[in-house]
Formats: sequence, C-alpha cells, structure tokens
Amino acid sequence: MPQIGIGIVGGGYMGKAHAVAFSAVGALFDTNFRPHLEMICASTATSAETYRAAYGFARATDDWRKLVRDAAIEAIVVASPQETHREIAEAAFAAGKPVFCEKPLGATLDDSRAMVAAADQAGVANMVGFNYVRTPATQYARELIRGGALGQITWFRGEHTEDFLADPAEPATWRTKGVSNGTMGDLAPHMINAALALIGPIKSLCAEVETVHKSRPGDQGAVDVTNDDHGQVMCRFESGAMGHLYFSRIATGRKMGYAYEIHGTKGALRFDQEDQNALWLYDASSPAERRGFTKILTGPEHPDYAAFCQGPGHGTGYQDQITIEARDFLKAIETGKPVWPTFRDGMEVNQVIAAAFESSKKQGWLNVSAV
Amino acid sequence: MPQIGIGIVGGGYMGKAHAVAFSAVGALFDTNFRPHLEMICASTATSAETYRAAYGFARATDDWRKLVRDAAIEAIVVASPQETHREIAEAAFAAGKPVFCEKPLGATLDDSRAMVAAADQAGVANMVGFNYVRTPATQYARELIRGGALGQITWFRGEHTEDFLADPAEPATWRTKGVSNGTMGDLAPHMINAALALIGPIKSLCAEVETVHKSRPGDQGAVDVTNDDHGQVMCRFESGAMGHLYFSRIATGRKMGYAYEIHGTKGALRFDQEDQNALWLYDASSPAERRGFTKILTGPEHPDYAAFCQGPGHGTGYQDQITIEARDFLKAIETGKPVWPTFRDGMEVNQVIAAAFESSKKQGWLNVSAV
Amino acid sequence: MPQIGIGIVGGGYMGKAHAVAFSAVGALFDTNFRPHLEMICASTATSAETYRAAYGFARATDDWRKLVRDAAIEAIVVASPQETHREIAEAAFAAGKPVFCEKPLGATLDDSRAMVAAADQAGVANMVGFNYVRTPATQYARELIRGGALGQITWFRGEHTEDFLADPAEPATWRTKGVSNGTMGDLAPHMINAALALIGPIKSLCAEVETVHKSRPGDQGAVDVTNDDHGQVMCRFESGAMGHLYFSRIATGRKMGYAYEIHGTKGALRFDQEDQNALWLYDASSPAERRGFTKILTGPEHPDYAAFCQGPGHGTGYQDQITIEARDFLKAIETGKPVWPTFRDGMEVNQVIAAAFESSKKQGWLNVSAV
Amino acid sequence: MPQIGIGIVGGGYMGKAHAVAFSAVGALFDTNFRPHLEMICASTATSAETYRAAYGFARATDDWRKLVRDAAIEAIVVASPQETHREIAEAAFAAGKPVFCEKPLGATLDDSRAMVAAADQAGVANMVGFNYVRTPATQYARELIRGGALGQITWFRGEHTEDFLADPAEPATWRTKGVSNGTMGDLAPHMINAALALIGPIKSLCAEVETVHKSRPGDQGAVDVTNDDHGQVMCRFESGAMGHLYFSRIATGRKMGYAYEIHGTKGALRFDQEDQNALWLYDASSPAERRGFTKILTGPEHPDYAAFCQGPGHGTGYQDQITIEARDFLKAIETGKPVWPTFRDGMEVNQVIAAAFESSKKQGWLNVSAV
Ligand SMILES: NC(=O)C1=CN([C@@H]2O[C@H](COP(=O)(O)OP(=O)(O)OC[C@H]3O[C@@H](n4cnc5c(N)ncnc54)[C@H](O)[C@@H]3O)[C@@H](O)[C@H]2O)C=CC1
Ligand SMILES: NC(=O)C1=CN([C@@H]2O[C@H](COP(=O)(O)OP(=O)(O)OC[C@H]3O[C@@H](n4cnc5c(N)ncnc54)[C@H](O)[C@@H]3O)[C@@H](O)[C@H]2O)C=CC1
Ligand SMILES: NC(=O)C1=CN([C@@H]2O[C@H](COP(=O)(O)OP(=O)(O)OC[C@H]3O[C@@H](n4cnc5c(N)ncnc54)[C@H](O)[C@@H]3O)[C@@H](O)[C@H]2O)C=CC1
Ligand SMILES: NC(=O)C1=CN([C@@H]2O[C@H](COP(=O)(O)OP(=O)(O)OC[C@H]3O[C@@H](n4cnc5c(N)ncnc54)[C@H](O)[C@@H]3O)[C@@H](O)[C@H]2O)C=CC1
Repeated sequence: MPQIGIGIVGGGYMGKAHAVAFSAVGALFDTNFRPHLEMICASTATSAETYRAAYGFARATDDWRKLVRDAAIEAIVVASPQETHREIAEAAFAAGKPVFCEKPLGATLDDSRAMVAAADQAGVANMVGFNYVRTPATQYARELIRGGALGQITWFRGEHTEDFLADPAEPATWRTKGVSNGTMGDLAPHMINAALALIGPIKSLCAEVETVHKSRPGDQGAVDVTNDDHGQVMCRFESGAMGHLYFSRIATGRKMGYAYEIHGTKGALRFDQEDQNALWLYDASSPAERRGFTKILTGPEHPDYAAFCQGPGHGTGYQDQITIEARDFLKAIETGKPVWPTFRDGMEVNQVIAAAFESSKKQGWLNVSAV
Repeated sequence: MPQIGIGIVGGGYMGKAHAVAFSAVGALFDTNFRPHLEMICASTATSAETYRAAYGFARATDDWRKLVRDAAIEAIVVASPQETHREIAEAAFAAGKPVFCEKPLGATLDDSRAMVAAADQAGVANMVGFNYVRTPATQYARELIRGGALGQITWFRGEHTEDFLADPAEPATWRTKGVSNGTMGDLAPHMINAALALIGPIKSLCAEVETVHKSRPGDQGAVDVTNDDHGQVMCRFESGAMGHLYFSRIATGRKMGYAYEIHGTKGALRFDQEDQNALWLYDASSPAERRGFTKILTGPEHPDYAAFCQGPGHGTGYQDQITIEARDFLKAIETGKPVWPTFRDGMEVNQVIAAAFESSKKQGWLNVSAV
Repeated sequence: MPQIGIGIVGGGYMGKAHAVAFSAVGALFDTNFRPHLEMICASTATSAETYRAAYGFARATDDWRKLVRDAAIEAIVVASPQETHREIAEAAFAAGKPVFCEKPLGATLDDSRAMVAAADQAGVANMVGFNYVRTPATQYARELIRGGALGQITWFRGEHTEDFLADPAEPATWRTKGVSNGTMGDLAPHMINAALALIGPIKSLCAEVETVHKSRPGDQGAVDVTNDDHGQVMCRFESGAMGHLYFSRIATGRKMGYAYEIHGTKGALRFDQEDQNALWLYDASSPAERRGFTKILTGPEHPDYAAFCQGPGHGTGYQDQITIEARDFLKAIETGKPVWPTFRDGMEVNQVIAAAFESSKKQGWLNVSAV
Repeated sequence: MPQIGIGIVGGGYMGKAHAVAFSAVGALFDTNFRPHLEMICASTATSAETYRAAYGFARATDDWRKLVRDAAIEAIVVASPQETHREIAEAAFAAGKPVFCEKPLGATLDDSRAMVAAADQAGVANMVGFNYVRTPATQYARELIRGGALGQITWFRGEHTEDFLADPAEPATWRTKGVSNGTMGDLAPHMINAALALIGPIKSLCAEVETVHKSRPGDQGAVDVTNDDHGQVMCRFESGAMGHLYFSRIATGRKMGYAYEIHGTKGALRFDQEDQNALWLYDASSPAERRGFTKILTGPEHPDYAAFCQGPGHGTGYQDQITIEARDFLKAIETGKPVWPTFRDGMEVNQVIAAAFESSKKQGWLNVSAV
C-alpha cells in the first residue's frame, strides 16, 4: 500500500486531532494510502518539536512555507488560526498539493472566495473541516431527508451553543477579539454547514448579532470585546422551508449544543450532539396510538459506524469524526474527485455568515446572494 | 361557607374543563367560596341541555345574555369561540359580574382593548385562561428567575408547537379560517404570555408568519386556508434579553410543544410541557465536574402542587391547571384584587401578536408599542 | 340521574383524593350515578368536621360504624390505615354495601383472605385502590401485551422506589413500625399488582428483605425500626417469564420510581411513573436502521385519556388516576359486575408479599401457592 | 522515545480495536513507549495476512506460538476466543512477556486461576480487557463513590443487556454453544467487573440462569443451544450493600445496556452505556426544591477525557476506551507495577460467574468464596 506524506500546520487542539486521525485511519478504514506523519509546523520551533515528539511526526518546523514546499509532503492539513488559512492554502495549491482546511474556510468571505479560486485552479483535492456532519447520526439524517422520509420540509431549527464565555468575569483572550473568532465567525460555521447539507441553500435571512458582555477583565483592567457573543438568524431556504439558527458562546449549561429539529409533512427529526449516538425520528405514518419519536441508536447499519465497532449502541465520539474526515480526504486525493464538503461548500458557509452580519447591521431581511 | 353561582358560556373542550374544575376546586383547595354549577350555555338548546346533564349544572340555556343577566349567576366563565369573547365579557361587566375569559382574550387587539376598558370600568375580578403558566414547574421557573437564580437573562427561546394540521391532506375546518383561529391567533398566546411572565415585556420584534398549505380538501373540492400554519418571531425584551418564539400547528411529532429554554449569566432553565412535571435547572456555580442540568421533579415544595398530592414526582396534569385557575378566580372575586393574568395581561399578549403580523407584512423590525 | 351517597372512612392523603375524585367524576365521565358526598369519618370528631367542611361532605363522624350503618351511605371508601381495613370492610359487606378499599387490601394475608370471603358472601361490588395501573400509559401497556405486540414475554423488571426514608437521620414514625407499613407492606403492593396485571400470576420467588437503618432518632433517643427499608424478589411467572422486583423507601433520588421494563420476543416496553405520560415501545419488526424505543405520549387514542383532555401530550396526573377509580367503582356498583382489581386481586398481591417475607426468612425459593 | 513491539493474537472485532488503539495511543497520550505493530496472528495464514495489511502490522502468522516467541514482540494482546486465552497467556508469561488479555480472562474459573498463577510467577504486567470501566463517566463514578459522595451504599443494580439473539429465529452459531460464549460467560464479565470496582467484593449471591430458546435453526434443522440466554443474580456485597445483576442477549431493544443505578445515604448515580457521555448524579444535600438527578456531560474535568477533546460534551466513544486500555498497558509495562484491572481482577469476575452458575443449579444462596 502506497504511503502518503502528511504535513500538518498547527499542533494545538485540531492539529493533534488530525495527527491522531491520520495515525488511526489506516487501521480503521480500508484506505488505499497509508498516511505517514511527515512534518508538523507550529509558531515556534520549540512547540513544533514538542508536537513532533508527542504525535510521532518525523520532522518539525516553525515555517509553514517549508512544510508546504517539502517534497515528502503530499497532503496538507491547515489547523492553524483562521487568519492564516488563506495564505497557507494558496501556497499549497500553488505547489499542487491537496489541502484539508479547518473551519472556517477563510477568516472573511473574501478570503474564502480567493481560496475557492485557488483550489479550482489547482484542480486538486480540497476539503473543509466540518466534522460534526460526519457523525453516523447526522449522515443518516441526511440520507433520511434525501430519501423523502420527512416529506416536504417545512421547518428547520439549528443551534450551536456553548457556554465557555457565559460568565462575564471570564477574562478577555484572543477569543474575544477579531470577528472571525467570535460566535458567528467561529461556532456558527458548523451548524450553517449542517443546515445547507440537510435542507439545501439558504435564499434570504434576517439576523440579529450581539455582544452581550461588552468588556471583560484583562491583565490591566477591563478590555473591550470586539466580537459577538451570540446571534440569531431567521431564514428562508430555497426549497421554501422556513428556518431559524442560533449561535452562542454564552449559553449557560450548553457544552456541545449542536442541535437541530426538522419538521416535514411526513416526519420529523431531532438531534443533539451532546448525545451524538442517538437520532430521534418521528414517522407520521405510524398508527396514531403508537406514534412518537423513536430514539435510534447508531450502529453498524448507519453510515461510517461499522469501522469503529460491530455492536450497535457502543458509540462513536469526537475523535472518530476527525478520522472519518481523514478517510475522506485520502479518498479525495486518491480519486481526484471532490469529496464533500469542499472549499466551495466552506465558502458558501462564509457567505451566509457575511449576510447575517450585514442583515444585523441594516436590521432587515437580505438575500444571501447579495453579499 | 358561602356558595357562589357559576355560569359557563360554552360546553365544549374548555367548557367541560372549567365545569370539572369548579366541581373539584372546593375539595382540593382551601377556598372561601364553594362554587355551585348554576347554568351552562351553548349554541343550541339541545347541546346546552346535554352539557347540563353531563357536567351537573342546575340549568341550561342557548342564550348567553340570559345567563349573564341571571341573578343566581355570580361569576362567569367565557369558554366559547374567540369571536364571541368581547360581547359576552362586556355584557357581564355591564352587569357587574366577574369574568374569567378563555384565551385569546379578544379575537383582535381592538376587541382586547375594549375588554380591558370594560373590565377597568366595572372594577370586578377579571382573568384570562393562560393555564400552562400555572403548572408547578412553570410557576417555580418564574420564582427562580425572579429570585435571581439565573442571573442576568441573555436568551429566551419559546415555542408552542403541535401537529394537528401537519398533514396537508387534513381537511379544511373552522380552524383553517379566521385569523384568530390560526396559529398566531390561537396557539401563540400561551407562550407569549409565558415569555412576558418569565422575562418581562417585549420591546421590539421581527416576525415571519406563513400559511404553508394554502388550500385543504373540503366537501366540494379544495378550500382556501385563510390563516397561518406557523410563525416565528425574533424579539428584544425590555430587560435587554434577546429572544425567539416559534409557533406551529404543522410541527410533525409535537403534541404539546409548549417549551422554553432560558440562559442567564448564572444559570439556565429548560422546560417542555410534554413532560410537565420536570423542570431542568443548570446552576453555573456548581463545581465544574458536577455541573449539568438537574431534572427537578415537581413536588410539594413547588407552587400549587401539594393540594394535588403529598408525594413528589406523582405528577399533576392538564386538568389540574384549570382547577388552579378556578382557585385563583375565586380568590380574585373574594379579595376584589386582580389575580394574574388579568385582562390587561391578555391584551398585552394580543398586542405582541398584532405586532408580529404587522412585522411579517412589512418584513422588518417593529416596536410592540407601535401597534 | 340517580344520586349515590358516598361515605369515606379517613380524611387524610387518600381520603381527600377520593373526595376530590367523587366531586369531579360525574362531570368528567359519562357515569350513570351522580355521587353525593354524604359522610366522612376520621379518628376524632374535630378532624372529621374539618375534613367535612374542607371537602364538602354533608356530615361528619368519628365512628366508622355509624357511617357504615347510615341509610344514606350507599357506597363506602376505606381510606384509613391498613390495620383498620378488614374490620370496616367486613362490617360494610355485612350491611350489604359496596366497598372500595385502599391498598394494601388487608394488613396481613389472613386479613385479606377474610375480606375476600366477606366480599364473596355479600356479592356486592368490591375494588382495591391500585391507582397506578390506571394511567393511560399502563392501561395501554396492558393492551399491547395482551394483543401480542411484545410476542412471548421473557423478562419483567419492576420497581417501586421512593426515598422518603433514605436519610438515616430521618426520625422514627408510625411508618417505621408495623410490617404492613414497611416497604414490602406499603409500597410493594402497587408494583406487584402491575406485574400480575401485565404478565400474569407469579409461580415462585426468592426474596431478600432488609431493614438497613435499624434504629432512627425518636423523641427520647434512638428507636428501633421494626419494618423493612427495601426488598428484592427474583420470580418466575406462570407463563414462564423470568422477573425481578425491587422495592425501596431509601432509594435516594427516586420520588415515584414505579417503573417497569418488559422484554418479549417481538418487542419491549419501558415505563417510569416519574414521567407518567410517556410509554416507550420497541418494535423489533421495524427496519434495523430505524429501530429504537419510541416515546409514545399518551393522548385521546389511549385508554381513559380523552375524558381529561382532547389534546395528546397535554397530560394526566396523579389525581386523575383516582378519578378513574371512582368511575370504575360506580360502574361496578351499577352493573353489579366485578371491576378489576377486585378484593381477590388485592389478596393475590398480599399473597406474593407473604411469600416474599417467607422466602427471605428461609433464604430460598418458594412457591407462592405455599403461603 | 523507545519503541515497543506489539503482537496481537486475533484479528477480528477486538484484534482490530487493539490495533487501532496502539496506532493512536502514542499521539493521544503522553506515553513513554511508542508502540510498533510488529506481528498479528489469526487462525489461518490468509486471514492473518489480510489483517496485517489492513491494520498496518509488519508481519503476520497463523501460529501464536511463533508470535509469542518472536524476539521483536515485547508485549502481547490476546484477542482470540476465550478457550484460547489460557494457553497463549501461559506461554507468553513463560517467555517473560507482558500480556493484555481480552475478557473473560479464562474460559473457566480453573483457567483463570492458572493464568493468575502464571502471571504472578512471571511478575510481568498483566491486564484484562474490561474496557467499559474506562469511560470518563464510569471512572468518575468510581471517584465519586470513593470520595464519599453517595455516603453509605445501600443498593446496586447493574445490567448488561443486548438483543442480538432476541429473535428465536436467529440461527445457531458458535455463540449458542459453549458455556463461556453464553450470556453469563461472555457478557456478564463487564458488569460484574464494574460492580466489584464500584462497590467492592461480592460476598454471597443467589442466581437464576436460563436458556429461553432451547434450540435454534441450523443448516440441517434445529440445533440445541448449549449455553444461557439470560441470568439474574441477587447479591450481597462485603460492604453490606444489597445488589442485583441482570445479563441478557435476548433483551429486545437493548443494544449496549451496560447500565447501573446506585443508591447511597447521601446520593445516587445512574449510568447507561447507550449514552456513555452522561453520568446522572443525585445529591441529597441540595435544597429540597432544587433536588434532582443532574445530567453531567463528561468533559476535560473528568478522568481521561481531555486527551480526546478539549471541549466538554464533545464525547468519547467505544474505540477510545480501548485506547485508554493501551495507554494503561504501556504504563504497566513501563512501571512494572500492576495497573487495574489485572489478571487477579479478571479471575475474581470468573469466580462470581462460577458461583452464579452453581447457585442457579442448587437454587439457593452461596458464598462466592465457596467456589
Ligand atoms: N473542527 C473543530 O471542531 C474545531 C476547529 N477548530 C479550528 O481549527 C483551527 C485551529 O484551532 P485550534 O487548534 O483550536 O487552535 P490552537 O490555538 O489550539 O492551535 C493553533 C496552532 O496553530 C499554530 N500556529 C499559529 N499561527 C501559526 C503560523 N503562522 N504558522 C504555523 N503555525 C501557526 C500554533 O502554534 C498552534 O500550534 C482554527 O481554524 C479553528 O477554528 C478549532 C477547534 C475545533
Ligand atoms: N386554555 C386552553 O388550553 C384552551 C383554550 N381554548 C379556548 O377556549 C375557547 C373555547 O374553545 P373550545 O372549548 O375548544 O371550543 P368548542 O368548539 O369545543 O366549544 C365551544 C362551545 O361554545 C359554544 N358556543 C359557540 N358559540 C356560542 C354562542 N354564540 N353562544 C353561546 N355558546 C356558544 C358552543 O356551543 C360550544 O359548546 C376558545 O376561546 C379557545 O381558544 C380552547 C382549547 C384549549
Ligand atoms: N393509593 C395510593 O397511592 C396511596 C394509598 N394509601 C393508603 O391509603 C390508606 C390511608 O393512608 P393515608 O391517607 O396516607 O393516611 P393518613 O394518615 O393521611 O389518613 C388516615 C385517615 O384515617 C383516619 N383514621 C385512622 N384510624 C381511623 C379509625 N379507626 N376510624 C376512622 N378513621 C380513622 C385518620 O383520622 C385519617 O383521617 C392506607 O391504607 C394507605 O396504605 C396511602 C397513600 C397513597
Ligand atoms: N472488550 C470487548 O468489548 C469485547 C471483547 N471480546 C473478546 O475478545 C476476544 C475475541 O473476540 P472477537 O474479536 O469478537 O472474535 P472474532 O471472532 O471477531 O475474532 C477472533 C480472532 O481470533 C483468531 N483466532 C481464533 N483462534 C485462534 C487461534 N487458535 N490462534 C490464533 N488466532 C486465533 C481468529 O482468526 C480471529 O482473527 C474474545 O475473548 C471476546 O470475548 C469480544 C468483543 C467485545
């Protein structure tokens, strides 16, 4: 089996997750490449070396350009902060190398558009790190909807809610500055991607975005918060369905509130990432006295579950989503065919976010295509 | 103990519920009046007589004016369709009699305003039938919020969702015509009342109201649907909290989806009427490793529970809410003091609904005070 | 509609519940009798008079014999402590009057047997207060099982767990003395009755009954506890199904832990009284990828729900169970036909309890018919 | 970082899981060894070679003796059927090599005892594959109990229930023959291990074990089932706590019903592996009106979670448990100190099972030490 040299930019939260994924993916899935952890890059030489040793890479660097150029690097994962995504991806494409980029694709819509153009020109595999849509439950939800199990969709409600900044006494950090690190920039992309994947394109929207706690304690007194704490979006899908999205980093009590509820003329679905191994399905065609939401536990019958366990209900977790991404990225490289979600999908998410900001500013409805 | 003669207009769904409530309230609660089921009124003499016999009233009539005027009638319950509420209530107040009116107070905001004026002028007890806010769980939620358990409220999400018209093949009936019988007119009042009760007045809103299934089967072919199937409202409370409301009669799978989620800086609450005996509380001050939503089962420690059962977790039900209303109405009559929610509270709900319709028409934000 | 004079012995927890039930039952259900609250009896004249006034009875007494003999009393409810049940019931039957007796039927198996004999001889209506089997959910569970929805039952697990004595510092009271006030005597009957109703007779069993906290604080120092805190029973049903029962008053966290899980070759059921409006059904014949437990919310399609509410998911509560009992008792009187559960059913429950005590003493398996 | 050569016997369900675990463990945890997948063994050369290629081993063999003896193999995982465990482990110990053995330790109690003796004599690292006790939730449950959060434990109920043989039409396979492949032999060990870990040693028990479906379809007509479908155990822990265990492979609807409920004088715990990322804690010291079970989502505050994800509620899955085992096994090898659960712990589980069979046969209570 041919090896493939993997280079990862960023060794933090997600850099590690991808390193683990590429370590495990070959044993878990029937891949045609066996990934080799070739090089890891971080901001400093010291941290890069630490990551190298910890994750088992062959080499380390503090210069992502070196990584991108290196002949042994055949596929690149961008797991550094959003502001860095564009430059790295463009350089990688210029070197003709496939890129997997963490979400959000670009720090701005302009960045994302440039990245899509670069990907198109390079004609190589490109993917975005929307891992949550890869749980067996959400993949199955998508199949159910496409298969017509819910009939005509009339309502979609999605949220991505966490509470890491719910306490106003929580200090200011990099997370509290820079639009792309705010709730809309950083948390919203996952659920917007899910909305688009499950229901289709959003035509128009009306949003309200807000910084609730306008300053937070810093080392030398109060520091201004320059990005948003939460935001909501009423929307209309092109299919005609009505929808609502809510995003928050101050949703006290919510840890991984990536959740959706979908109603259609024939059925309904409910999902909450905090119990990611269950999908709740309502089938309106059941006899009235037996109707209700069925708690389906994911199992080998559902997409991408069997590789992790032969027993239903045994459960997959966060890291497994990242491993599924690795499998897909390898497949995209192998086949030369785009594997969803591509950079274009990532850009469409940024477009919805840009429209939401614009709508919130002008306080009214807006066509997504207008931004 | 002095008796009090009760007259109920309407012997259907709610007329029965109130008849049962007034039968049981004296034994359940420590009331100062013992209600006597004096007269029931329905559209026809035959149905009125049937109700009389079934519910145990002394007399029956098909003329609500007779009921209102009757000397033995000392308190009146209006449980007939919304279009009739105003006229009956005004006549009752004119006769100086206390009125309990089913929700929505009036069929229109104008009706409601006139009814408030009439109540104010009469100076007698007046209440509106928002029964769901009377569950022990929601009463306790209100206490918790007022007591500061959640800190500063940052987000409120409420819904009232059912699915009795989810199937487009469901035929046209009186429910599918007349604005006050639509989702905003008929279902929304309960949850709007809850939002106002829990969080306070709504300052501004932006809504989207829609008839999804524009015609339905009738006896002689398709019939136009002249009211709304679902509607959503983004709102801003006067307290500064942001909110969202959703109402639907086509929410496949939902039977009694009167549900809310509230986030504050110190805690959070979740409630779903489909499991009305549980309230979920998150206390952010607990140690990190023990934090989570606590499923509190209602019990004698919670408002108005002990009268129904000495054991916690034994549960109250729909009918018990109506009996609590009867207790409150008797108390309002006895003390001559308004007991929440009064006609004014009911009118404020109608105002939010009117603003939502207006906002949906003009497709933008609106101050509630503008309608 | 003919009136029927009701006499209730006991005005406490259950006396009140039955007084409320007989106040409401006529308006709720299509009964042929209209109950009249004729007389209430309590241990003292003062308390009896208080209850009379509170619940709306015509007369009060402190002598149950007077109540039993009174010509205006046509039906008797025994809601006094277990030790009094036999004597009162026997006297009532001797006077030819129908008797509804709270659980447990008798304080001992001997008492129960004598009561069944007296009922048989009198040939009048007789019922036992197993209210929990009357929830719409459990009634429906029974229908499902009888209709074969679960196939051959292989396993039944039932529990009745509460925690009112979980804290060893909780003082000694009448509840901590007398076998019939212990967990097996007082709590177990409800779930044993459910087990017999759902699965059929128990053939043999092996039990372990225990007083965990052997003394408790009293007014003058520690007081011995003379009855059991919890007990478990392995059993074999006559149908061949295997089972387990657990009863506890020290089950910290459980408030109304009347719960069962039933597995059959074709399906499964789960129920917990703490959420009494939901029944969880698993149908093994569903396609593998859609299988799971369906949370069925009770509604008008389920037994005895519609009288309380026309909307599904709106919920019934504890008091409603007692009202359903009142309806059934009136029906038994009217038809002269036994309505389940009769005194015989109550006696069979006592027999299982007696067998459990015996088994625990001899530490081994026992045929229930042996006691 | 020193490499360590891993040899795995068995390439099926668990062989794969361990191969993946050793691929990922180095990147996930701060191990001192970096495992190298040196050799895999399966029953046939062809299957061994397939596994080798799929999982990324250096070499393959169909002779476990070769694997055991091989100089490059420094640690051995036994993931072949239970009947083979003893012989392989003994040989590995004889060669002075650390052994990780899948559950159950031995196919019989005698096997297990011999294996413990061999491990003791070898004095090398030895562990048993009870992966479920390694979820962050169950590790935290253990900490809570040890820290006294529940006070004195009065009741433990555990179950391991699945439904893969619930349908009597399911054909006979190797699973339906051989005591060690039955429910008590194959499923029970996990939960018995949990019971011992959470509550301590079991002193005595009384069990009932049963083959419900005595024959199943085979290629040539009905085939006798020679092992048990389900079994229950009443038990008494040495601490004095009472307990109950239930094991089933015919529990229709249950997929991964590894669940426990624990009551103590100060609190209670509930856990169900089907939602492995939540632990339900009841704290009796909370104010009465706020008491209830708290759904704690596992997060970085809980044992062994942070390595997999920095965000709480993001969830770990089945495979992660196996990776935690790999980390522990490496640690045991490195330190030369036993890491729980050792072969001795595995043997104690087999002892409980042997006692349960004996008790079921003689139909009575038994001291576990008697077998
Ligand atoms: N899919 C998901 O669930 C998540 C995605 N993310 C995304 O992953 C990306 C990385 O986030 P985290 O891992 O949380 O950040 P982190 O702060 O934990 O790690 C960032 C890494 O990037 C490196 N880095 C920063 N600037 C660099 C530069 N100019 N050149 C080379 N290396 C540089 C840092 O040294 C560090 O190793 C972000 O785009 C973020 O939005 C983050 C968390 C979860
Ligand atoms: N609080 C709650 O949960 C609910 C409140 N409602 C409200 O209760 C009111 C009644 O609704 P339902 O009981 O569902 O209606 P229904 O259709 O079941 O009964 C209406 C009754 O009013 C009588 N009626 C109609 N026009 C009349 C007239 N002009 N004079 C005298 N009687 C007349 C009818 O004969 C009938 O007895 C409505 O305002 C409705 O919005 C309804 C259902 C639930
Ligand atoms: N079905 C259920 O859910 C429940 C059933 N019960 C059963 O109901 C019965 C009564 O229990 P509670 O109402 O909880 O008791 P309680 O202590 O609240 O009330 C007992 C009543 O009986 C009266 N009484 C006692 N001795 C009497 C005598 N010799 N003559 C006349 N009156 C006498 C007392 O004055 C008092 O009014 C018991 O058999 C109990 O097991 C109790 C609670 C719940
Ligand atoms: N911890 C857990 O959650 C689980 C543990 N297990 C345990 O893991 C062990 C293996 O079970 P599975 O993986 O399900 O079995 P499996 O049937 O999927 O795989 C067994 C493997 O052992 C090999 N094998 C059989 N006999 C052999 C021999 N004499 N020499 C060399 N290789 C041989 C086979 O070729 C096959 O590769 C068993 O002890 C089982 O009880 C199984 C499933 C789950």
